[in-house]
Amino acid sequence: MLSVGIIGSTGYGGQELVRLLHQHPNVEKIALTSKSYAGHPYSSVYKSFYKIVDVHCQPEDMQQLAEDVDVIFLALPHGLAAEKVTPDVLEQAKVIDLGADFRLKDAAIYEQWYGLAHPRASLLAKAVYGLPEFFKTDIQNARLIGNPGCYPTASILSTAPLVKEGLIDPATLIIDAKSGVSGAGRTLSLDLHFDEVHGSFKAYKIASHRHTPEIEQGLGLIGHLGVNTPNISFTPHLVPMNRGILTTGYAQLIQKISAKEILALYEKTYISQPFVRVLPEGASPETRWVKGSNYCDIGITVDERTNRVIAVAAIDNLVKGAAGQGIQNMNLISGLPETTGLEQLPVFPA
Amino acid sequence: MLSVGIIGSTGYGGQELVRLLHQHPNVEKIALTSKSYAGHPYSSVYKSFYKIVDVHCQPEDMQQLAEDVDVIFLALPHGLAAEKVTPDVLEQAKVIDLGADFRLKDAAIYEQWYGLAHPRASLLAKAVYGLPEFFKTDIQNARLIGNPGCYPTASILSTAPLVKEGLIDPATLIIDAKSGVSGAGRTLSLDLHFDEVHGSFKAYKIASHRHTPEIEQGLGLIGHLGVNTPNISFTPHLVPMNRGILTTGYAQLIQKISAKEILALYEKTYISQPFVRVLPEGASPETRWVKGSNYCDIGITVDERTNRVIAVAAIDNLVKGAAGQGIQNMNLISGLPETTGLEQLPVFPA
Amino acid sequence: MLSVGIIGSTGYGGQELVRLLHQHPNVEKIALTSKSYAGHPYSSVYKSFYKIVDVHCQPEDMQQLAEDVDVIFLALPHGLAAEKVTPDVLEQAKVIDLGADFRLKDAAIYEQWYGLAHPRASLLAKAVYGLPEFFKTDIQNARLIGNPGCYPTASILSTAPLVKEGLIDPATLIIDAKSGVSGAGRTLSLDLHFDEVHGSFKAYKIASHRHTPEIEQGLGLIGHLGVNTPNISFTPHLVPMNRGILTTGYAQLIQKISAKEILALYEKTYISQPFVRVLPEGASPETRWVKGSNYCDIGITVDERTNRVIAVAAIDNLVKGAAGQGIQNMNLISGLPETTGLEQLPVFPA
Amino acid sequence: MLSVGIIGSTGYGGQELVRLLHQHPNVEKIALTSKSYAGHPYSSVYKSFYKIVDVHCQPEDMQQLAEDVDVIFLALPHGLAAEKVTPDVLEQAKVIDLGADFRLKDAAIYEQWYGLAHPRASLLAKAVYGLPEFFKTDIQNARLIGNPGCYPTASILSTAPLVKEGLIDPATLIIDAKSGVSGAGRTLSLDLHFDEVHGSFKAYKIASHRHTPEIEQGLGLIGHLGVNTPNISFTPHLVPMNRGILTTGYAQLIQKISAKEILALYEKTYISQPFVRVLPEGASPETRWVKGSNYCDIGITVDERTNRVIAVAAIDNLVKGAAGQGIQNMNLISGLPETTGLEQLPVFPA
Repeated sequence: MLSVGIIGSTGYGGQELVRLLHQHPNVEKIALTSKSYAGHPYSSVYKSFYKIVDVHCQPEDMQQLAEDVDVIFLALPHGLAAEKVTPDVLEQAKVIDLGADFRLKDAAIYEQWYGLAHPRASLLAKAVYGLPEFFKTDIQNARLIGNPGCYPTASILSTAPLVKEGLIDPATLIIDAKSGVSGAGRTLSLDLHFDEVHGSFKAYKIASHRHTPEIEQGLGLIGHLGVNTPNISFTPHLVPMNRGILTTGYAQLIQKISAKEILALYEKTYISQPFVRVLPEGASPETRWVKGSNYCDIGITVDERTNRVIAVAAIDNLVKGAAGQGIQNMNLISGLPETTGLEQLPVFPA
Repeated sequence: MLSVGIIGSTGYGGQELVRLLHQHPNVEKIALTSKSYAGHPYSSVYKSFYKIVDVHCQPEDMQQLAEDVDVIFLALPHGLAAEKVTPDVLEQAKVIDLGADFRLKDAAIYEQWYGLAHPRASLLAKAVYGLPEFFKTDIQNARLIGNPGCYPTASILSTAPLVKEGLIDPATLIIDAKSGVSGAGRTLSLDLHFDEVHGSFKAYKIASHRHTPEIEQGLGLIGHLGVNTPNISFTPHLVPMNRGILTTGYAQLIQKISAKEILALYEKTYISQPFVRVLPEGASPETRWVKGSNYCDIGITVDERTNRVIAVAAIDNLVKGAAGQGIQNMNLISGLPETTGLEQLPVFPA
Repeated sequence: MLSVGIIGSTGYGGQELVRLLHQHPNVEKIALTSKSYAGHPYSSVYKSFYKIVDVHCQPEDMQQLAEDVDVIFLALPHGLAAEKVTPDVLEQAKVIDLGADFRLKDAAIYEQWYGLAHPRASLLAKAVYGLPEFFKTDIQNARLIGNPGCYPTASILSTAPLVKEGLIDPATLIIDAKSGVSGAGRTLSLDLHFDEVHGSFKAYKIASHRHTPEIEQGLGLIGHLGVNTPNISFTPHLVPMNRGILTTGYAQLIQKISAKEILALYEKTYISQPFVRVLPEGASPETRWVKGSNYCDIGITVDERTNRVIAVAAIDNLVKGAAGQGIQNMNLISGLPETTGLEQLPVFPA
Repeated sequence: MLSVGIIGSTGYGGQELVRLLHQHPNVEKIALTSKSYAGHPYSSVYKSFYKIVDVHCQPEDMQQLAEDVDVIFLALPHGLAAEKVTPDVLEQAKVIDLGADFRLKDAAIYEQWYGLAHPRASLLAKAVYGLPEFFKTDIQNARLIGNPGCYPTASILSTAPLVKEGLIDPATLIIDAKSGVSGAGRTLSLDLHFDEVHGSFKAYKIASHRHTPEIEQGLGLIGHLGVNTPNISFTPHLVPMNRGILTTGYAQLIQKISAKEILALYEKTYISQPFVRVLPEGASPETRWVKGSNYCDIGITVDERTNRVIAVAAIDNLVKGAAGQGIQNMNLISGLPETTGLEQLPVFPA
């Protein structure tokens, strides 16, 4: 049985961890910490947990937590997580960072996109990018996991086979991504005020979103292209709904190939991956079919007129895009079956 | 281990049953029937089940099902369910009707509100009203359950202690109820077309909704007032969201009493009921805190100026208001702990 | 031609005033003031006005504004508006307060519900309650208007004929009200964060909302019952949509009367009121049919089983519930036809 | 003063025409026809028009209408409109088709994408593509207008200057488009049932949507590239909201150029176009800022890492994407100022 701690348990990602860990058959203890809500019952922060998780939030004490638990989840803004992870901590506990601090391998790229020097650059070499579908063995042997971003999870899973098999010109890859609002977190902002979002749609951070280099790195590693190739264009959009990400990827095919052939390749790639569902020809993912679950649905279309492939993926941004994938990683580093505690079916309509 | 069959498995209530039964530890087999989709894979009707529940829907054959399974769920429009239930069927299998046919005890009232003679009036005496919080022993001994309606579940649970303890004048009871759209089902109608509902709010079936006599009967039985007393006014409203019911009940208090005292009474009433959460003084239920779960949250306010009590309840209409309560009843009639397979925590934000 | 100034032009009510005044044929100048955005182009605060209303917001200078314009709108939180209105100001300009400071006639009731001594109690006798359907002549002669609250507008218009004609027992009146989120304003709060509201429904401020005494006063005045009678129970709810209020009123009828007869009475009451639409028997208001317009739709049902009347109203909370009604009042105090600049048809689907 | 008739007045596009025409200062008569609702009051089909447009719908009699009115709007599914337009009709009245039948110049392309032989191919040469920003003179002299599709309007307006000035390689153009649900019309379909859409996001008709050749033709004509060049990839998505389209266009720049320079070019292109708002550098369109209005907002970003330009446009699909643009065309063919009756400001929040 595992004991687990969460630093930053009161954000949307944190509370999704609590929901899933509470139902996990191999987790016997969950320590919840919070800077803003220390001393308050967890169920006063999220009333869904009333009479279920009424324990009080503890102050954020990383050192103490490392002594007390087997696995620590960090659900903090970038910069703040890396500070807390020391070689000492890593000797005592395994760490899974849901934030951005241990995803990029290159401290210079981190600094360029995140605008600060990496607080623990020396640990980057030890950190493993926690995308189990492609880096499972590394994850199983790791003590420090950089849990993938929500957009990169869908973007990489839906296009990696194209890059890996050399089917597309990686210089032509464009990812047009759309996310529900929970991806932006619980911190107040006029942009997330109900009336400003409901009934509206927009693009944001065009050509400047921090998930861009993470997608490039992931595809580069999987496709043996080097960390910074291909150079993609990535545009996120905000959808007036709570949960769900859909990514639409476009790339020029190098030679003629049918959707059926590409799908066969995807099926082969993901045959042993329990959470990737490659849809049959003609079907296209929708976020409603994965909500509340750890699935990533993928659909492929070939635009024969332009010889482009269009690869679409749908995930629940808080599950496969954050907490669920984090638990998938926890299972792997703990020697448990990957799917343990993650068998929840999608909830529809929700 | 139980084997279970569903007649009408492709409506919203039916698919919620499938979701919950699939994760139920004591259910080994689920037979899915459908009139419209017989021969089609269930996952083509609800793509959330792709690679999970790909079995084909069978034709609706009640007799065959009764031979094959232990428990049959009916999720059909009123009138159609009662026809299918014969004494023969009931000898072979236990039946839980999610629809309206076996809720009312009095065939004349059924005919008055539903506009047709009851097809199996002779079985009404054997049917038990499946509200476990008040009729648990009867349910445990029953072979035919009328699973409560979504509105009555919230309405009765939130006001029954007031009636039972004689705190209110039952002639003054008003229930103003609000439901998400999934309560109206999957059948196409202009009133449920996206653009007609989104961004709008309305009342419907004012003073004429069929759940009215069911609430009256439930409160009458619990309060020993007889089936048709009190005479309530019940107004349902449509909320532009998928799931959730909130009921706001008003009644004149017979004497001065504080919210605190009333809450103590509620706590006592529901102390052994695992799915009712009586909220502390000053807190009020919201549908977001119960979504995807079998909980019913209840809050009480006393309006001292007018000496009225206002009782608010929130449920997920597809879980505690339909499929979840159905499984709670299945557990009880099968000798299982009431909560088996129903421990899912609420999903938020969703 | 009128010149108009707005104090607090950057809230939702303020911007709706700007939208409507900009299209008003008799308004030649609009001075926009803002505490938070002084010096910024108005169109940077609401980008809908880009290339249309690009003028810069001025600081809030009531005295200056009173010299410069004919009519001043106040769109400020309660307490702040009253302070700004002096006898001096009222000599120079007419004032319409969209907020709560000049609605209640009795300073003691104001203090009791708003928790502060009224800053200009001496002016209350001069202020007219700006509900044109019942107080038109007073409004035409006024220099200071307390523009009705959004909930009271719908609540009073839909029940006043019942009270006035003595059809109901005023002690039994209950108003169950539901509002879109824009009624809560643009100030940030976790309760108005998109993910906390979307897909959820709740009651709030049960038995304690400040619009309660305003409804009681309005009905009391119209029904000649005195300011504080009847004593109503009022419960507001939050609907996950931007605009729209629906109120559902319940009261015990004193004698038997049909919906048809009541409707005839309503038709007679509102025959000359251009913005009230009494719906035919069997029809019920929906917020979608009034969105963006100044209409108030009213529907009446009689629950014969309980001898109750159920009166439902729908308005756009930002138009008839705030800015539109404000302009209706501006027209009246300026000698213009009541409907000037308010002929916009409802926008559907929106 | 104009008299106007509408064939197919009871779809969403038709009712938006009615809303706008009713408020148009130069329209004195509106004849409403409907196949499904002939004989019913228009306000029974859309209750927003109650007591405003209560006239009864007439049967669809094109010949009669041509005799009675100056301008006929067709708001019908493709195929049905073309049939009704005869040379005879065009002699008596001017015709604006909101549908797809007179947009494509090449009957073969029409047949290829719409799957039927064009019913009036002989009239295609006379029809003018009604995008006023680029074809104003032709429109002014036309008697038959093919009103642009909703997606093409936003797609073309946001990318045409790039094509026309030769800034991009037209072979690299990708349009990723997102629409509110009203674009799909009022005809019932499970895909448009509230619970299937709300809280979800999807792509549809990937690489096969019929607006693709229309965008190609529009850009081809404007860019002097011939009707079928460039070959774009076009992917529409469904957003869970009522109104609004956002298009995100991607193309490879031929040489280095800054966003500022491109924006200057856009400003120049659209300087005399009253309904196009080119946003300043760094700003990006959002559908909320144009809702209910005839504006098209455009924003430009250059992705310097990849030397791509990203062009985003937002429109209200029922106004600039359908009825509003239709009235803009009506004004032009009638010798009226282009903006007549179209000055409504955006409605926010809605």
